[in-house]
Amino acid sequence: MPKKVDHEARRREISQALWRIASTRGLEGASLRDVAAEAGISLGRLQHYFRTKDEMLVFALRHIETLAQQRIRARIEALDEEPTPRVVLRACLTGMLPLDEQSRTGFLVGVAHFHRAVHDPSLRTDARDGIPRLRAFFADQLRTAMERGEVRAEHDAEAEAMVLICLIDGLSTYILLDVHTPEKAVELLDMHLARLFDGAGAG
Amino acid sequence: MPKKVDHEARRREISQALWRIASTRGLEGASLRDVAAEAGISLGRLQHYFRTKDEMLVFALRHIETLAQQRIRARIEALDEEPTPRVVLRACLTGMLPLDEQSRTGFLVGVAHFHRAVHDPSLRTDARDGIPRLRAFFADQLRTAMERGEVRAEHDAEAEAMVLICLIDGLSTYILLDVHTPEKAVELLDMHLARLFDGAGAG
Repeated sequence: MPKKVDHEARRREISQALWRIASTRGLEGASLRDVAAEAGISLGRLQHYFRTKDEMLVFALRHIETLAQQRIRARIEALDEEPTPRVVLRACLTGMLPLDEQSRTGFLVGVAHFHRAVHDPSLRTDARDGIPRLRAFFADQLRTAMERGEVRAEHDAEAEAMVLICLIDGLSTYILLDVHTPEKAVELLDMHLARLFDGAGAG
Repeated sequence: MPKKVDHEARRREISQALWRIASTRGLEGASLRDVAAEAGISLGRLQHYFRTKDEMLVFALRHIETLAQQRIRARIEALDEEPTPRVVLRACLTGMLPLDEQSRTGFLVGVAHFHRAVHDPSLRTDARDGIPRLRAFFADQLRTAMERGEVRAEHDAEAEAMVLICLIDGLSTYILLDVHTPEKAVELLDMHLARLFDGAGAG
């Protein structure tokens, strides 16, 4: 048992080395050797955990998603006892934006993964599975909001959920390019949510 | 004079080599030497035109923007004599989506540029200048639509324009990741536009 824990800890250490590279000079040009050097271990030892850069990227991405989920859950649990669908959605969406160092690095690891996935169909599986799950969760929130009269029932919940995911993607890109500030991005998100949650029955 | 024309032609040839690499294995790992080999010229000759990969990326990006503008302009000019702001906006926005090979490669060159710009403030100038110009153009179209009663006057034209740009970014990303088809992305864009163009005075 302790051995397994060590392995997980070592994988996380390697992931952290990967993130440090992602947040400073970027992962595109980084080799397994560079990551081993940053983690302070030999290339052989690194390859004991990750045979390829893609394996490492997928692990780092999953770990970052876990961190983001924890962050979002903590935020929701800190709220009033019964958060509305709008509050849940907003917590998730702002949790996906690169508003601090952790989420910024997470987004950059995601972009590095995206870059490779575009040229490698097998890597696209992650996105093809993960995004529809996220969309389904958001759509559920929107349907609950429709039942509560907060979102007009004629809206297409699945489609609106996907528009939200796309919007977050673009808002994030333009934060990282200094086109707008994180605060401005949140403002644009809130404007979009306000238009979506304009149900005639909103109380 | 012929010399200048030759130079421009050569630059375009190099750009095309760059796009071929972008659309197949990706630009992240590609060196100047790789691009020279793809263009069938020596590294020294390539460096006569572009000293660095960044210079080359910026040139390729500008050329791709010019092609996109020509494509969009041609599409608008092929329409009825007086296109409405909504028609102009839709032509621009669909022209930005990776719906065919040319625009797909253009988007990938943009992503490669984005990747470097995140870690290099000097490269961000392009985005910081270009996106606000695009936003201003879209906002002008939205203000005209407001005057025509097609978009509600209480909307914030600049903010809505930026939401459109962000939405296109995300829709494009998820086309390239096979999360949705190009047709589905256009459908989502149209849904968003329909909600935006719901002005009480729409005739």
